[in-house]
Amino acid sequence: MSVDLDISGLLPKARPLLVIISGPSGVGKDAILARMRKLGGHLHVTVTATTRLPRPGERDGVDYHFIPPERFQAMIAAGELLEWAQVYGNWYGVPKDQVKQALARGQDVIIKTDVQGAATIKGILPQAIFIFIAPCSFHELEERLKQRHRESGFDLGLRLATAREELKRLPMFDYVVLNPQGQLEVAIRHIRSIIEAEKSRVNPRLVEL
Amino acid sequence: MSVDLDISGLLPKARPLLVIISGPSGVGKDAILARMRKLGGHLHVTVTATTRLPRPGERDGVDYHFIPPERFQAMIAAGELLEWAQVYGNWYGVPKDQVKQALARGQDVIIKTDVQGAATIKGILPQAIFIFIAPCSFHELEERLKQRHRESGFDLGLRLATAREELKRLPMFDYVVLNPQGQLEVAIRHIRSIIEAEKSRVNPRLVEL
Repeated sequence: MSVDLDISGLLPKARPLLVIISGPSGVGKDAILARMRKLGGHLHVTVTATTRLPRPGERDGVDYHFIPPERFQAMIAAGELLEWAQVYGNWYGVPKDQVKQALARGQDVIIKTDVQGAATIKGILPQAIFIFIAPCSFHELEERLKQRHRESGFDLGLRLATAREELKRLPMFDYVVLNPQGQLEVAIRHIRSIIEAEKSRVNPRLVEL
Repeated sequence: MSVDLDISGLLPKARPLLVIISGPSGVGKDAILARMRKLGGHLHVTVTATTRLPRPGERDGVDYHFIPPERFQAMIAAGELLEWAQVYGNWYGVPKDQVKQALARGQDVIIKTDVQGAATIKGILPQAIFIFIAPCSFHELEERLKQRHRESGFDLGLRLATAREELKRLPMFDYVVLNPQGQLEVAIRHIRSIIEAEKSRVNPRLVEL
């Protein structure tokens, strides 16, 4: 009797995961996401909408949806964003529909957001998985920020002070993953392990969007 | 100022993990542990004491401590076992000192036990990580048990009925890992992911033995 031999009904039902990847500015979130995007298939890496200009190599619709401020305001007004925030003068927002549709397809969804945005999502979807990407030291973070931002008027001190404050929000997160300079694959491996482990949970997290 | 640049003080302190690997008889726990033993280093795979006879290829002090029933009784009497149980006519027990010493050395400790033993340990050390190894089907479990036990008087029906009961204890566990026949490396990879993910937890589990 085949029903009798089947154990799948006794095991927890697999559910798509919602993973929030956050951390201070300069910690390497974008590089991590670019790499995870290549893993493809079962994983949907949400494309954030932003009013900031593309950095060299960034592609519209792949790395970000680069949109003008008026369009961003319209998305807020229409309730099309899961969360949004102004970060160092630019707006960033997570398109709600994109997340909903990917979850409905059964894909695991990754959302990248700053720490403030993670707190907002925690309020709406506490059952999501919250991962904080941390630098190995403030010195390393400082060097990265210096390399990336060479424009005049860039306030390095403000970024570092903010990073310090953001680290205090760590208790809100489920996991912390170090992203050591030059060892991106270590951070990626940790994140993939977290996703694999969460998929093995006896009591799966139930995310309702 | 180096203190000011250091963030390690802000991150959760790394703690050794205690991982309980359980599941029905015949699911392949021993094969999993033999493989994990080879990973070495940071991992201590506890050597269970048993009164049963070695299977072909099993080595005393490596796969099990094979001891006579009188010695086993003495260990119980002296309080030297973390848990012990009679399973299908043989006694199995987890030496407490071995676990304590490995944790004190900072090693992650893996304990293999039957489902009844896992329940006992859950009562003593609820903060341990409990992993249930499940077969893909009862049919697969049946085939494995038939292959292993060819002696007369072996009660296959009893084993399968017990496995069914044991699966009902799944809610007590944190994770469930399938061990498909012939794909041991998949189960090992899942267990390693769980360990890696648990090491990334913002709120580490605190096991006090």
